[in-house]
Amino acid sequence: MNKSPLAPEKFPDMPAVSGVRFASANSGMRYKGRDDLLFAVMDEGTTAAGVFTKNSMPGAPVDWGRKILSGGTARALVVNAGIANVFTGAAGIETVEKTAETAASLLQSNPEEVYIASTGVIGELIETSYITDTLPGMLDSLSEDNCEAAADAILTTDTFAKGATATCQLNGKTVTINGFAKGSGMIAPDMATMLAFLFTDANIPAPILQELLSSENEKSFNCVTVDSDTSTSDSVLLFATGNAKNTAPSAAADADLADFKSTLLSVMQDLAQQVARDGEGATKFITVSVTGAETDTSAKTIALAIANSPLVKTAIAGEDANWGRVIMAVGKSGEKASRDKLYLKMCGIVIAEDGARSPSYSEDQIAPLMKRPEITIEVDVGVGSGNAYAWTCDLTHGYIEINADYRS
Amino acid sequence: MNKSPLAPEKFPDMPAVSGVRFASANSGMRYKGRDDLLFAVMDEGTTAAGVFTKNSMPGAPVDWGRKILSGGTARALVVNAGIANVFTGAAGIETVEKTAETAASLLQSNPEEVYIASTGVIGELIETSYITDTLPGMLDSLSEDNCEAAADAILTTDTFAKGATATCQLNGKTVTINGFAKGSGMIAPDMATMLAFLFTDANIPAPILQELLSSENEKSFNCVTVDSDTSTSDSVLLFATGNAKNTAPSAAADADLADFKSTLLSVMQDLAQQVARDGEGATKFITVSVTGAETDTSAKTIALAIANSPLVKTAIAGEDANWGRVIMAVGKSGEKASRDKLYLKMCGIVIAEDGARSPSYSEDQIAPLMKRPEITIEVDVGVGSGNAYAWTCDLTHGYIEINADYRS
Repeated sequence: MNKSPLAPEKFPDMPAVSGVRFASANSGMRYKGRDDLLFAVMDEGTTAAGVFTKNSMPGAPVDWGRKILSGGTARALVVNAGIANVFTGAAGIETVEKTAETAASLLQSNPEEVYIASTGVIGELIETSYITDTLPGMLDSLSEDNCEAAADAILTTDTFAKGATATCQLNGKTVTINGFAKGSGMIAPDMATMLAFLFTDANIPAPILQELLSSENEKSFNCVTVDSDTSTSDSVLLFATGNAKNTAPSAAADADLADFKSTLLSVMQDLAQQVARDGEGATKFITVSVTGAETDTSAKTIALAIANSPLVKTAIAGEDANWGRVIMAVGKSGEKASRDKLYLKMCGIVIAEDGARSPSYSEDQIAPLMKRPEITIEVDVGVGSGNAYAWTCDLTHGYIEINADYRS
Repeated sequence: MNKSPLAPEKFPDMPAVSGVRFASANSGMRYKGRDDLLFAVMDEGTTAAGVFTKNSMPGAPVDWGRKILSGGTARALVVNAGIANVFTGAAGIETVEKTAETAASLLQSNPEEVYIASTGVIGELIETSYITDTLPGMLDSLSEDNCEAAADAILTTDTFAKGATATCQLNGKTVTINGFAKGSGMIAPDMATMLAFLFTDANIPAPILQELLSSENEKSFNCVTVDSDTSTSDSVLLFATGNAKNTAPSAAADADLADFKSTLLSVMQDLAQQVARDGEGATKFITVSVTGAETDTSAKTIALAIANSPLVKTAIAGEDANWGRVIMAVGKSGEKASRDKLYLKMCGIVIAEDGARSPSYSEDQIAPLMKRPEITIEVDVGVGSGNAYAWTCDLTHGYIEINADYRS
């Protein structure tokens, strides 16, 4: 598979996050000639937060993550790519438990401090020994500098590794936030629509970390959709080692946390946008902004109706400003919108106002803009002050090619 | 565009419905070398019923139809293909009114007895003279036997004309129900997801006709989806001339109407299935049945989540029994479903039971069945007794080809 034309030029230079080490390996489970197993080890005292898919058929690793999250601490993360361990009944639970036990015994920690994520085909069983036999040999290669290899090991149909990094100030200390993600198809809110792992050396108690992750997730990973299909495996996890030794904040609303919070959001948005940029078959990155809706929630429903419309996405693939399909998508959302006040811009060009095509609009003006790789759609639906955005990609032959024959 | 491989062998032989005459012509509006304008004229005393799109950005013809429906009678139907007259403001309303006036003056009837439907591109204006200059010349060619030409004239990206016919008994008289439909993309409930016109010589008062149409629509046109995109133009209209001279029924629940009602449903289901069979790029006709849901409504939501899933549809296009995607789609529907009781059959083969892959399941058994043009998916979600079905088609390169370049 060729790298998406929308990919960033390169994986970012990631400074180490003190207290987090990565190793990756090929388990032999499904993929040949590439790593498919990630082992991340965190220092003692690391706090954890997580958000998981809302799909009601979650995989065994998601059930496990939800269960151990109440403990608030983490020592390890094990991720495999190739088989999702979803809809696998008792055998799937056993795989998760044995994986956690193996990692915990290697680290002399508690199995309930070992987070697990799996991505790949649904319904197939993982032969647990592929994981448990491989983990011990990975201990020696653990390193703080292996972030790109770690990001590579969790990919499935992705065409590039997705990483983001930033630093900020927290209570007088400089802290780092690193993240990487995978996701390319079966991507839709609600949550989390992909695997994303975030690591920071900040010292933040687990309940506050969870509040931050949940609120920023709404504005990042929950704004991206590729195909409206919500995965059964998706998980966003945030680990904080505390090695920056800042004074711990006492509440998520602390003014001291403002910089950390906005930096966390920027890292999460960067990763979320990279997922849309790597949408299966993507040739265009699309940003949909909706304003003037009844509420922010209503605006998001409308934004996602546009971002998920196969007709909107195929038109953009064809570099055709077929804006009537955007109107259709607003109307099918079921949300309140004024046909007679509706205002629509694409690529910065005013197309519709007051319920009809704008007198100033000409196709000649927009045609060259539709050839660009970045497309914007801005709609004001004229009924209130709710607003939201969504990121997606176009729907192309590439999506069909990838998905009509994924398992073979 | 080649004819869909799922098309019926031929357009059915349609007996005339007494009191309904058709003419078709090329208006010159958009299409060359084919008829794009339909003029149907009904005898005086014809009653009318209609159901329209729930899209909140309906076209001017839909607004018009909703308005005149309260009159209960119809003398004419004018349909154009090529431009949908949607999101066209005051100019669009004028087109509708002038069309109705022209037809009414030709028939010396009331404009509010002239139904109008338009299908095609959204947001473009119709130059009204294309319609109003063409209608007068069509009067001479009106004929009871022109049903197939009428069905042809309303098509856009359809690859075949869709017709269905049946007769039944009503209060001692034999009555005929004829119908034709168009629809291929931008097809999704709720309602009506296409244009469909039904004609009968039965004598049925308008309020009863409406009740019958609305109830049977739920079990036919509202069960079909191609791409989850609900059109702004969709209309299903039923006209009853009364020429069969049966004694009028006094209520929709009359036992005397049982045969008519089930016959109407069979004609509507036949047309709805033909729409899925002509889904843009379709190579497989898919029937999804859901049982064991909390309610019938919940079952329909689940059935449509499966039928609209791009991942399910691309897998079937690839003749791949990637059943995990069906599980995902059940889970993403947001409806109550028991992961541990879930039962799944595809093409008659038991794949999953009790929350895991069935021990008896083998891919070798299902692989040859996936090559057939008709695919069935049956899911029992194990929480209640609600059931529903949906019809759809696969998602192929053909869909992308048609829609990435529809307007050029």
